[in-house]
Amino acid sequence: MTFKRTAIFSLLLGLSPTLFAVDEPIQPIKPVQSINLGQVELGKKLYFDPRLSKSGFISCNSCHNLSMGGTDNLKTSIGHNWQQGPINAPTVLNSSLNLAQFWDGRAADLKAQAGGPIANPGEMAASHTLAIDVLASIPEYVMEFKQVFGTNKITIEEVTQAIAEFEKTLVTPNSRFDQWLLGEKAALTADELTGYKLFKESGCVSCHNGEAVGGNSFQKMGIVEAYSTKSSAEGLSGVTGKDADRFKFKVPTLRNVEMTYPYFHDGEAGTLTEAVDVMGRLQLGRQFSDQENSQIVAFLKTLTGDQPAFQMPILPPSTDKTPVPRPFD
Amino acid sequence: MTFKRTAIFSLLLGLSPTLFAVDEPIQPIKPVQSINLGQVELGKKLYFDPRLSKSGFISCNSCHNLSMGGTDNLKTSIGHNWQQGPINAPTVLNSSLNLAQFWDGRAADLKAQAGGPIANPGEMAASHTLAIDVLASIPEYVMEFKQVFGTNKITIEEVTQAIAEFEKTLVTPNSRFDQWLLGEKAALTADELTGYKLFKESGCVSCHNGEAVGGNSFQKMGIVEAYSTKSSAEGLSGVTGKDADRFKFKVPTLRNVEMTYPYFHDGEAGTLTEAVDVMGRLQLGRQFSDQENSQIVAFLKTLTGDQPAFQMPILPPSTDKTPVPRPFD
Repeated sequence: MTFKRTAIFSLLLGLSPTLFAVDEPIQPIKPVQSINLGQVELGKKLYFDPRLSKSGFISCNSCHNLSMGGTDNLKTSIGHNWQQGPINAPTVLNSSLNLAQFWDGRAADLKAQAGGPIANPGEMAASHTLAIDVLASIPEYVMEFKQVFGTNKITIEEVTQAIAEFEKTLVTPNSRFDQWLLGEKAALTADELTGYKLFKESGCVSCHNGEAVGGNSFQKMGIVEAYSTKSSAEGLSGVTGKDADRFKFKVPTLRNVEMTYPYFHDGEAGTLTEAVDVMGRLQLGRQFSDQENSQIVAFLKTLTGDQPAFQMPILPPSTDKTPVPRPFD
Repeated sequence: MTFKRTAIFSLLLGLSPTLFAVDEPIQPIKPVQSINLGQVELGKKLYFDPRLSKSGFISCNSCHNLSMGGTDNLKTSIGHNWQQGPINAPTVLNSSLNLAQFWDGRAADLKAQAGGPIANPGEMAASHTLAIDVLASIPEYVMEFKQVFGTNKITIEEVTQAIAEFEKTLVTPNSRFDQWLLGEKAALTADELTGYKLFKESGCVSCHNGEAVGGNSFQKMGIVEAYSTKSSAEGLSGVTGKDADRFKFKVPTLRNVEMTYPYFHDGEAGTLTEAVDVMGRLQLGRQFSDQENSQIVAFLKTLTGDQPAFQMPILPPSTDKTPVPRPFD
């Protein structure tokens, strides 16, 4: 729909055209529409349960910390035995809106993603069998799985399904930018609006668009100019096997980007200022002035939405039959 | 007050003597009486903030996990760079009731305790200076410290004061045992009551008494029979310098003991059954039968109270000036 048609449509309804944001390349985050609340509550416990790791120390929340924008705010994550991860932990916030999961998109959806870190020897270092053995040894979990899934036997399918359902609740509506999109003109300052115009006009928006302001395409890191990095990650090509996909990564969401530092798949950009500068030069061939950079950064900071709000889950205790954590062997 | 006098007093009031638990050696946990709520909210953020550690990965909650009985449920904790801690992490729940903090009592109170792990190279591995530098670089923290403490300059005194004030809220009233103490006769089963009688008559209660069912004295580990352990911890003697205090440790609270496994200062007792057996033999010279043991364990499980219930805090983001975490150097 063009702006003109929208405007005419709006005028027909007697509404101001600015009340409609359909012509903007970014859409407001919608609150969760439909959810299985039983799975959510179970999945929340699992998300916070470090017993799904070999050490009993690392949970999903360790690297996708919901107190910190759904990330660990580290260049690359810390895994079992303090191993250094190969890539920056992407935020779990709004991740249900991604076209695929992981930087290289190797998981089709959140459910497919959730099983990965549990069994990855560099991350939680357990196995699906061990994780199930732990859960099956705890009567409260057995009962809750039965209530939620109607089965007596806990499977990794149900575990990842519940975690994914919880993660679907982790959307962040109501950012100042979304308020503006929805017609609240006073929600943005002049500088923030100028930053948004720059973001659109200079081409950032060609990749960072849609509800999540990213997350919906794979793009090459370093289009105009090659990206220099010590990271060995090659992105999408590892999934497709195509040489043309080397260094293509899922475009990260910019929602809550003020909280999800450091930036890029290698975490090498520590600040938004640096990230905007590098993106401008390498992806767009454009050197933003200091003022332009700060205006774009000001716009980006308006993308912080309502953070997840829920009570810390209380985990059911282990029993005498629960496999014991093994952090040091 | 003797039972007789209580009974007479109760009868004078026309009440059943069993409504009064003043003759029991254990008292109900009282809800928090007086608290500085501003400090609590600030302290909650600090308690969950891993930026107080060198790695940016370890927070107070890492080892005193409020989803898991205020412990990490590991024999000994995992510190910076996956170092193995020297001692079992005591629960933070009801720790305000302890006569002193740490197993050896080297910190007089929660405030004195809170600064320890931040600067301990084997735990959070930061320094007080670094922790303050991090907080002072974050405007939301600066503002909140000013609101709460009325000062422009954040100090470690205020940091530990706020954390301690939050920790004072972590009491767990309303356990089934406390309901019974308060007159709800049906709150305990016959087996649980028998277990409690055994707990009293066999002498467990001589050390595990008071509101926290422990935490109010130092006692030697291994009175009747020496305790054999690989742990090099010698307890109170390290604080007092007295040889007579070797292997004296603070008696742990038994509140929520079902959740605070594994047990003892070295974490070597994995189950309550084992812990009760060892305590009976080494401290009391008594070999509990299987039935007695299971009745005492049944009683101990009635000491689980209301767990902390609050929203996950959202931490204010770092700024371009915030010292960057250094997990791998």
